Amino acid sequence: VVGIIARIVSGEALREVMRRIFEALGVPREFAEATADALVFANLRCVDSHGVSRGLNYVEGIKLGEINPRPSIRVSRETDISVLLDGDGGLGPPIACELAVRVTEKASRVGVAVGAAKNLRDVGALGYYVSKVVSSGYIGVAVANAKARVSIPGVASPIVGTNPVAVGIPSRRRTILLDMALSVVPYGRILSYASRGEEIPEGWALNKLGRPTRSPKEAAEGYLLPIGGYKGLALAMMVDLLAGPVIGGPTSLEIRGSGPYTQGGLMILAIDPAIFRDPEEIEKDIERYAETIKSLPRDPAAEIVIPGEKASRCFEERSSKGIPLDDVTFSRLVKVAEELGVDVSELWAASST
Amino acid sequence: VVGIIARIVSGEALREVMRRIFEALGVPREFAEATADALVFANLRCVDSHGVSRGLNYVEGIKLGEINPRPSIRVSRETDISVLLDGDGGLGPPIACELAVRVTEKASRVGVAVGAAKNLRDVGALGYYVSKVVSSGYIGVAVANAKARVSIPGVASPIVGTNPVAVGIPSRRRTILLDMALSVVPYGRILSYASRGEEIPEGWALNKLGRPTRSPKEAAEGYLLPIGGYKGLALAMMVDLLAGPVIGGPTSLEIRGSGPYTQGGLMILAIDPAIFRDPEEIEKDIERYAETIKSLPRDPAAEIVIPGEKASRCFEERSSKGIPLDDVTFSRLVKVAEELGVDVSELWAASST
Repeated sequence: VVGIIARIVSGEALREVMRRIFEALGVPREFAEATADALVFANLRCVDSHGVSRGLNYVEGIKLGEINPRPSIRVSRETDISVLLDGDGGLGPPIACELAVRVTEKASRVGVAVGAAKNLRDVGALGYYVSKVVSSGYIGVAVANAKARVSIPGVASPIVGTNPVAVGIPSRRRTILLDMALSVVPYGRILSYASRGEEIPEGWALNKLGRPTRSPKEAAEGYLLPIGGYKGLALAMMVDLLAGPVIGGPTSLEIRGSGPYTQGGLMILAIDPAIFRDPEEIEKDIERYAETIKSLPRDPAAEIVIPGEKASRCFEERSSKGIPLDDVTFSRLVKVAEELGVDVSELWAASST
Repeated sequence: VVGIIARIVSGEALREVMRRIFEALGVPREFAEATADALVFANLRCVDSHGVSRGLNYVEGIKLGEINPRPSIRVSRETDISVLLDGDGGLGPPIACELAVRVTEKASRVGVAVGAAKNLRDVGALGYYVSKVVSSGYIGVAVANAKARVSIPGVASPIVGTNPVAVGIPSRRRTILLDMALSVVPYGRILSYASRGEEIPEGWALNKLGRPTRSPKEAAEGYLLPIGGYKGLALAMMVDLLAGPVIGGPTSLEIRGSGPYTQGGLMILAIDPAIFRDPEEIEKDIERYAETIKSLPRDPAAEIVIPGEKASRCFEERSSKGIPLDDVTFSRLVKVAEELGVDVSELWAASST
């Protein structure tokens, strides 16, 4: 959370208000629910950059006619083990949810399935859709391409998006879920430094000429650096090809639109772990793995985190104590709701700081 | 290539000599061929760390009884879309080849397939097996776990292996193949710096207490750093879980054996791109992508490389001009061959430097 915490609100209240906002904009109830759930999922896991603040961007996009609130999701191509959806320029979360559901359902019959969606807007946190696959008992992998914002030194142009990768493995004892962008830091981090007037560390970004910079202002007009230099760039290119040309969607460089809700394509894979091994046995070994990793010798200050562990801890805490919303997001939320005549009494009923 | 170039030999000669060496050690002809081909594939693509020098390590492993030269590859579990192989402690390349062939064959019938292999020794370059999937017209993805050698600051133990990831997309016009380890640099790079007595750059490695070091000697006894810090570590953990617990194999920390030919498990996925789109259309868009990327504004010194491009250029060059072997590898090769009574006249017939 950036800025001053204005209110602490419950996940339920936030989900309810966001759903009503989207419904007031003409989004069908089921789609509004999926969108609200995806956004609050991110807030509950401390990924506030992908939470309701992003949902408020979707509101702008719908108002500007750049996001279709009532898309006709169409099946472009389908087999027993695959599906390709055309999202009709729609709000991302319901389309990505539909994709996750269809891929999971196919994997449940065949053992493995892969699906993709194109022609949709921002889906938010990719991990949300993988967590849907995982909660049904399947290994989930997802990749997506985003508008180009990542480059390497010496190149005076963005090359690829932050093109996230998410991977999850079912385990009832703990959440094993990785959801990461392929840039060293997210673009939002640069903006936070800019708002505080602080220099950014070396290795985060380039200016628009492709030169390393520590100025957050220059970086905001420039490009993010990929993890591992050429390695992260190469991985982001492969994601770009899978989520773009392979499914007939745009590459990161081809994604059009300027609002903070653009999206390329999305691919989701689901694998039934039972094709390899009794899931109960896998879970036992995952638990042993986590325990081994956590008990390795280390400095008291150092921590080894299992993918998904921090977000799960946050989820536990925010599920019981509520989600802190910063003043900018909170007042934006209330303003949007009031404009649309949406009841926000649940938000005020929640505890303030 | 490290050290002085002793000879330049043709890929054919090298493949032939390596095959004879493995046959002389009791490896069945088909397995010896697969192994020689995997090793020379790496040399031809300038990945000399995974070429014949590594094959000479396999020779040691077979002599020491730590690699089974004649494994009975067993199918542990199989469905229409999946297969799990038990490699019987065998030489890695033939087992991984068998896996790639079976997964490709299943994908050709169903559209997607996933397979894994456990209980095998070092497979060499993971990209070799993905390239087999890709050359049959399928998208290939592979992950493997390796003995733990990667850690993060403050941890006085390795946590994960360099756990490589390989991804390839079919395109007759150019090779699109990523094959990368999740450490910033390979362990061999540290050893090269040590042999030259040069300091290593910051951000490559830790000493055995988990502190950043620029001494290659300390680094060689310590740990490699993952790409993107916690991000690369998290990705390497997911690979570790997929190639370990999910298939019933060891995690990076559990891999036993000390020779330079240990291996955890291996997972390969094959996807028929036609489930999404006409492959001809995909190829056209990939070509356009590559052209766009290559024409972005940049400094003359900067180069944007498509995954697989450098290795393909090397392949063209070494296929026509031959493979340069350093003096250490060349004399080791000749010595091993002579000990086994293997004819190496092809190597001498090749051009020297």
